[in-house]
Amino acid sequence: MMENAIGRTVPSQVEGYGQAKPFNGAFQTLPDMLRQAPAVKMRKPADSKLVDSLEEVFRRIPVKDGMTLSFHHHFRNGDGVLNMVVATAARLSIKDLNIAISSVFPVHAPLVEHIKNGVVTGLDTNYMSGPVADAISRGVLSRPVIMRTHGGRARAIECGQLKIDVAFIAAPAADDYGNLNGVMGPAACGSLGYAIPDAEYAEHVVAVTDYLCEYPLSPASISQTRVDYVVKVDVIGDPKGIVSGSTKVTKDPVGLKIAQTAANVVRAAGLIKEGLSFQTGAGGAALATAHFIGKMMEQAGVTASFAMGGITSYMVDMLNRGLLRKITDVQDFDLEAVHSIGANPNHIEVSAGEYANPFNSGCIVNKLDTVFLGATEIDADFNVNVTTGSNGLIMGGSGGHSDAAAGAKLTLIVANLLRGRLPTVVDKVLTVTTPGETVDVLVTERGIAVNPRRKDLLEKMIAAGLPVRNILDLKQEAEKIAGIPGKIKTSDRVVAIVEYRDGTIIDVVRQVTD
Amino acid sequence: MMENAIGRTVPSQVEGYGQAKPFNGAFQTLPDMLRQAPAVKMRKPADSKLVDSLEEVFRRIPVKDGMTLSFHHHFRNGDGVLNMVVATAARLSIKDLNIAISSVFPVHAPLVEHIKNGVVTGLDTNYMSGPVADAISRGVLSRPVIMRTHGGRARAIECGQLKIDVAFIAAPAADDYGNLNGVMGPAACGSLGYAIPDAEYAEHVVAVTDYLCEYPLSPASISQTRVDYVVKVDVIGDPKGIVSGSTKVTKDPVGLKIAQTAANVVRAAGLIKEGLSFQTGAGGAALATAHFIGKMMEQAGVTASFAMGGITSYMVDMLNRGLLRKITDVQDFDLEAVHSIGANPNHIEVSAGEYANPFNSGCIVNKLDTVFLGATEIDADFNVNVTTGSNGLIMGGSGGHSDAAAGAKLTLIVANLLRGRLPTVVDKVLTVTTPGETVDVLVTERGIAVNPRRKDLLEKMIAAGLPVRNILDLKQEAEKIAGIPGKIKTSDRVVAIVEYRDGTIIDVVRQVTD
Repeated sequence: MMENAIGRTVPSQVEGYGQAKPFNGAFQTLPDMLRQAPAVKMRKPADSKLVDSLEEVFRRIPVKDGMTLSFHHHFRNGDGVLNMVVATAARLSIKDLNIAISSVFPVHAPLVEHIKNGVVTGLDTNYMSGPVADAISRGVLSRPVIMRTHGGRARAIECGQLKIDVAFIAAPAADDYGNLNGVMGPAACGSLGYAIPDAEYAEHVVAVTDYLCEYPLSPASISQTRVDYVVKVDVIGDPKGIVSGSTKVTKDPVGLKIAQTAANVVRAAGLIKEGLSFQTGAGGAALATAHFIGKMMEQAGVTASFAMGGITSYMVDMLNRGLLRKITDVQDFDLEAVHSIGANPNHIEVSAGEYANPFNSGCIVNKLDTVFLGATEIDADFNVNVTTGSNGLIMGGSGGHSDAAAGAKLTLIVANLLRGRLPTVVDKVLTVTTPGETVDVLVTERGIAVNPRRKDLLEKMIAAGLPVRNILDLKQEAEKIAGIPGKIKTSDRVVAIVEYRDGTIIDVVRQVTD
Repeated sequence: MMENAIGRTVPSQVEGYGQAKPFNGAFQTLPDMLRQAPAVKMRKPADSKLVDSLEEVFRRIPVKDGMTLSFHHHFRNGDGVLNMVVATAARLSIKDLNIAISSVFPVHAPLVEHIKNGVVTGLDTNYMSGPVADAISRGVLSRPVIMRTHGGRARAIECGQLKIDVAFIAAPAADDYGNLNGVMGPAACGSLGYAIPDAEYAEHVVAVTDYLCEYPLSPASISQTRVDYVVKVDVIGDPKGIVSGSTKVTKDPVGLKIAQTAANVVRAAGLIKEGLSFQTGAGGAALATAHFIGKMMEQAGVTASFAMGGITSYMVDMLNRGLLRKITDVQDFDLEAVHSIGANPNHIEVSAGEYANPFNSGCIVNKLDTVFLGATEIDADFNVNVTTGSNGLIMGGSGGHSDAAAGAKLTLIVANLLRGRLPTVVDKVLTVTTPGETVDVLVTERGIAVNPRRKDLLEKMIAAGLPVRNILDLKQEAEKIAGIPGKIKTSDRVVAIVEYRDGTIIDVVRQVTD
């Protein structure tokens, strides 16, 4: 074990992961490798890629014990493909698989049994919630899970740390030669952005579709040049499962107050200007912030160059009303967004690498003016936890949180001072997901706190008359209301490695012993 | 030297190229390598990619003696970027550059002086015509030129045989962070397909543009994640130079007769059917063949799934009339095609790798039913020469000729029996560009000849009452009219290596000594 640059004790060696580098600051670790180089393949003109069943694909590749199989999460809680593929592996008595899926949802509960049976012995993901997350937190997996950021996963694939043997792409539309998109078919999910690095760098690529189209399918988010097999199944997923929580502006008065304050912070920072760019999540508070920013833009007569993030009908509406000139979209959170990306040329699909990979010639988060992000905890150093909950169990993960925070000129954490009966502002967060150096302002219903690294911002906030407070004051106020939270009991055993976007270890999650 | 599978004497070792494999049949050489792996890069959020001048780009990279600089040929004879970049190298006293450009045109004449001065000592291209081709043929370059196919160049880049130090992308539209397309701006050229492998695998990528757009530019044919520098110059090229010869159906009665016969061959082969796919070039005779095929499709009430190739207004018209469902476009040959690819979602940009790279999970030529190609010579084994002219000088090259011939189910060579006063059908072609095993039928104004490998086709042609003749009869008839051509005098010195699409050596071009 060793201590990293933000004082977290992290391992120097992890089983199934190899040498671990400690986190050393958001932009201190530079790439020193070549791009991943899979074996070159060939197809003769008469060859067919259509295969009758997943079993047959497993035999042709062949899938073997110990391989890494990858998946994308565009269907979120409606995904049918991961369970289908792992069940096939179990039927064929394959063991010791490493599952690399960009996010894990409650629908993936069958993974727990496959872990217990030894079919699956490794997990690599950017976010997890539900039964798998609970079971992992309680130690069901002998090796630690690798938790990455959305940009970090694209980096790990492109830079060869996450070597994928077989990528299974849930493809809402496919032709018989492997051109794929997410905008057509009964299970259209919109952007296929998270699957694009997998298709580019996996040794074998399998498209699993329920909607086979005439060749050549267009648009093609993933090209025939990277797809080896196409399997038609009955149903790849339930598009209703892609909807993520609220996609409407909150009506909660506290949430609205925080959102209005957040918008005021953006204005005070001088960012309500022609060509503004921002990222927002899909929650009601984040959308409310976008709503107030939209109102300010209308008043100022300015247009945003682009908005990024998981896309909802609210963002689509801003695009259609001319408040946004472009949407760059790595994932869609509702069916209006799915429709828009298929129909509006200014609603652009981007890959996970384009979105947020820190190790390429420049990703989109680098061009963000501002981002509004949530937190389950934030500490005096502005470190943010969105990985573990108040009970110590894993209930999330970075996703794009750390990526957008690192890229944007102004990163806001928008959070109620209390979540339930617990303070959001704490001495030390249980798990650091996003380092404080990439967080600029905490916005709560009881005032805002500016990261001391941003003296420039502090002056602007004070000049604008915003309710600026020291973050420790906010912590004390929260504790006065809710008391000091008890320490969560964990064992020494590490159940998850929290990898920063650059591939260094920013923290670990330890097994809960309640 | 050694003899390859079609009896051509080729070198086993070539300076600046390394070990050479002899051609061994169109699908006999399998890939045995990993994909090219350039060094991983990083950009911090505040970094700018805008650079004031090419000189400054040269200094930042830095460009050094002996490097390989790459270019694309979408501007054809209107390209301004190659000359600009090489002149910069000359001003900075850089020597010994290897120039990898997908095709060389008369506009590139200044290269000859740069070769004489030692600024350029290597050339790697798929096609060349004009002063550079003449000078090369007469021995101006001490190392042999590497002549590839369009698909072979994509393969050589992706598989690491053509390692590019710096790719210079002439970008009709660019934003400040390196998103590029060819469909906007004063010098719009349409598809950027040939530049896509360069951008993906070069160690450094420079966009040279005369039209800087707001971020994020969309559509983006090349992504910001691969572009390191953006340089704004006054003019990148003359879009009038992209027009390639005739883009209208021929009016020559002999040409029309050949075209009608070619269409009859396609029908006799059973390919005038729903979902047909074909590739055609831009010449008047090729377009006339497409014209007659279109008429047959209308009569039969069928629609083509797609057409491929260098795209002209004639193909665009077929798309707009509903005869084609899609166009897959690697290059545009006139401004109507440039407009269409920017406006019609069924007119699809594809990369050179998607078009024709034989070493990936499947390229588009594999899905072609038929292709109509030209020839300057064809021999008794159906080997075709489109590389050297009647005087032995280089005046072309494969481009996509060998690729489409290998991929299509039915490859037609459409040619007058005589070109000028010389027979087109000869004993042995001077240079083999495309191997006879991938050529099915020769169509001339005096009859057709079917490759003996295709007994199935021969029966169909006879059954359809087509004027089938032995290829040797056609040769004798041509010789009766024009006499037996004299042998072209060449020295032993090899001035160009003709590489087949799979990376093997199919032939060489020797220095002309007239």
